[in-house]
Amino acid sequence: MIIEKIAESNFNDSVFDSKVFGKNFSDHMLIAHYKDGKWDEPKIMPYGPISVTPAAMSFHYGQTIFEGMKAYKNEDEEVFIFRPEKNFERFNKSAVRLNMPEVPAEIFLDGVKAIVDLDRQWVPKDYGTSLYLRPVMFATEEAVSARSSNEYIFCILLAFAPSYYEKPLSVKIADFYSRAAQGGVGSAKCGGNYAASFFPTSEAQKDGYDQVIWTDSIEHKFIEEAGTMNVMVRIGNKLLTAPTSERILNGVTRDSVLALAKDSGIDVEIRPISVEEMYEAYKSGELKEVFGCGTAVVVSTYNAIGFGDERAELAPLSDEESFATQLKKKLKDIQYGIAEDPYGWRVKIEETVNA
Amino acid sequence: MIIEKIAESNFNDSVFDSKVFGKNFSDHMLIAHYKDGKWDEPKIMPYGPISVTPAAMSFHYGQTIFEGMKAYKNEDEEVFIFRPEKNFERFNKSAVRLNMPEVPAEIFLDGVKAIVDLDRQWVPKDYGTSLYLRPVMFATEEAVSARSSNEYIFCILLAFAPSYYEKPLSVKIADFYSRAAQGGVGSAKCGGNYAASFFPTSEAQKDGYDQVIWTDSIEHKFIEEAGTMNVMVRIGNKLLTAPTSERILNGVTRDSVLALAKDSGIDVEIRPISVEEMYEAYKSGELKEVFGCGTAVVVSTYNAIGFGDERAELAPLSDEESFATQLKKKLKDIQYGIAEDPYGWRVKIEETVNA
Repeated sequence: MIIEKIAESNFNDSVFDSKVFGKNFSDHMLIAHYKDGKWDEPKIMPYGPISVTPAAMSFHYGQTIFEGMKAYKNEDEEVFIFRPEKNFERFNKSAVRLNMPEVPAEIFLDGVKAIVDLDRQWVPKDYGTSLYLRPVMFATEEAVSARSSNEYIFCILLAFAPSYYEKPLSVKIADFYSRAAQGGVGSAKCGGNYAASFFPTSEAQKDGYDQVIWTDSIEHKFIEEAGTMNVMVRIGNKLLTAPTSERILNGVTRDSVLALAKDSGIDVEIRPISVEEMYEAYKSGELKEVFGCGTAVVVSTYNAIGFGDERAELAPLSDEESFATQLKKKLKDIQYGIAEDPYGWRVKIEETVNA
Repeated sequence: MIIEKIAESNFNDSVFDSKVFGKNFSDHMLIAHYKDGKWDEPKIMPYGPISVTPAAMSFHYGQTIFEGMKAYKNEDEEVFIFRPEKNFERFNKSAVRLNMPEVPAEIFLDGVKAIVDLDRQWVPKDYGTSLYLRPVMFATEEAVSARSSNEYIFCILLAFAPSYYEKPLSVKIADFYSRAAQGGVGSAKCGGNYAASFFPTSEAQKDGYDQVIWTDSIEHKFIEEAGTMNVMVRIGNKLLTAPTSERILNGVTRDSVLALAKDSGIDVEIRPISVEEMYEAYKSGELKEVFGCGTAVVVSTYNAIGFGDERAELAPLSDEESFATQLKKKLKDIQYGIAEDPYGWRVKIEETVNA
């Protein structure tokens, strides 16, 4: 790995006062090029623009995948990342589905560790804040021809993540638009899935909702994801979530929350959840909580669900009553190095680059 | 429109000897920036790389749409483009669905005309060859946050198009993978649709086919598109094609071929076509032709169709018998200024920029 350090750091403490997610980038980025069937040596260099032809294939045919991860700092100034091997594994699954080359662990995992180490001063210490890590790969071959690219850039960017989505959100259940087709790319973390979701989300916002709960594209009868997150539904004291599939992202936060829920004695069921079941539970007063899980937001609670034209308000629960609040705290306490980590999820970033 | 001409043209006749589609770019490109809710003045400048942050949102969230058009030269050195208002209209429909800003006619249409005029020596004269025009828009805001971008680049690129896909192709009917969901973005010409298709296509290639005929994502019972083209099926002397929908691209070549077919006295039916109907027709000897229609290829004939594990070979037809061959010739004769254009499809590029 080539490391070209920035001449003078752009860091100053005021970065941590920002309320904007993903706009304040750290000093460095990692770049690796794929060409002629192989990856070159990754290079960590000062963050900044790159020279790209407007004929770069990702601008035309959308071959682009990414991951979202975070780095946390504890009271002792130790820096941790969370389950990076899960993101690494999913990234390469996305790569296969998008017909892109897989990225070796020496570039992805060692790269994440090296750049977080180098930019460790950019990792904030306040509970709820973190340094967001964005591994991304996009097609760069200079060609307007509808086929897979032969050249790619893999890149890791780091940006400050303030506390996210503090207020409960409202979500509309999709009854026309879809996020993913059967036999499509719903389980891949690829750009096209996000691009396709923005217009339906803006339509839901016109109806007074913040986000969309996506449903199956066939009959809109079963819920799949919420916004850019996996979705969990609490009916009575049962926590339900849809099984992952080729349409549903295999979320790292989803997996972690499910593990914590089971180990907290919560009754967890992984099975299809119909809109009708949710609506009936709402009517009977059994729909206690609906929340999203994802790296950026950790856990996002919903206070209103749009069933067609009906806006179902969910009564707020106390912190003691709420599964979402409890599970979010348990997860964050592990991530921030406050609680024990019986799962071995935390990975400490050793000081080597700066040593 | 700002025009900054290249100091010295890169043109030489050997470009026209290339057999590669979309790799030989002309002297100029058009670039317009969208920011703060408006488009700046478009600029035609020498083709070349641009400076882009790796945090440009299109690399992450895939907001990118494009069009494909062609410029043709006749024997009198006159240059024409074909039905540009159709591409303009579709481009902006794609923009709406991807939650991107619409591009005004003064940038898109006037831009296409100005740059083709300026680079008219790059338009080849040989029948079957052309200058491919690629209007494209992609998100450029510097942010890793899953939402619509507030900044975009609209760009027009021009690249030499040799005769494309001369040999008949084989196509496998999709029975697992899908191109488009109901309520999805199948009718938009957006990057994500193409990126999602490459892996299933490579799987079909492992089975000995060139491309995929996409079917509905629900039951894989009805055919939708072929490769990156609309698909037409001739059963007996009837020409069938699927109706456009939110899943199926409203192809300009499709529309033109249908008009030519109707005016040639061919019995045309626009309706869903089931895989079963095609297979039964194959068994009874009534499946005469299957072909794709698109700007890049014009018309691409198929000589074998994969129904599950069965490879159905289609007997070749003579030029006189084949609807595909006849319709392709009629369309190209209009495009190349050989035949009359009763439809008003041809648009002459006047010499103004160089005058």
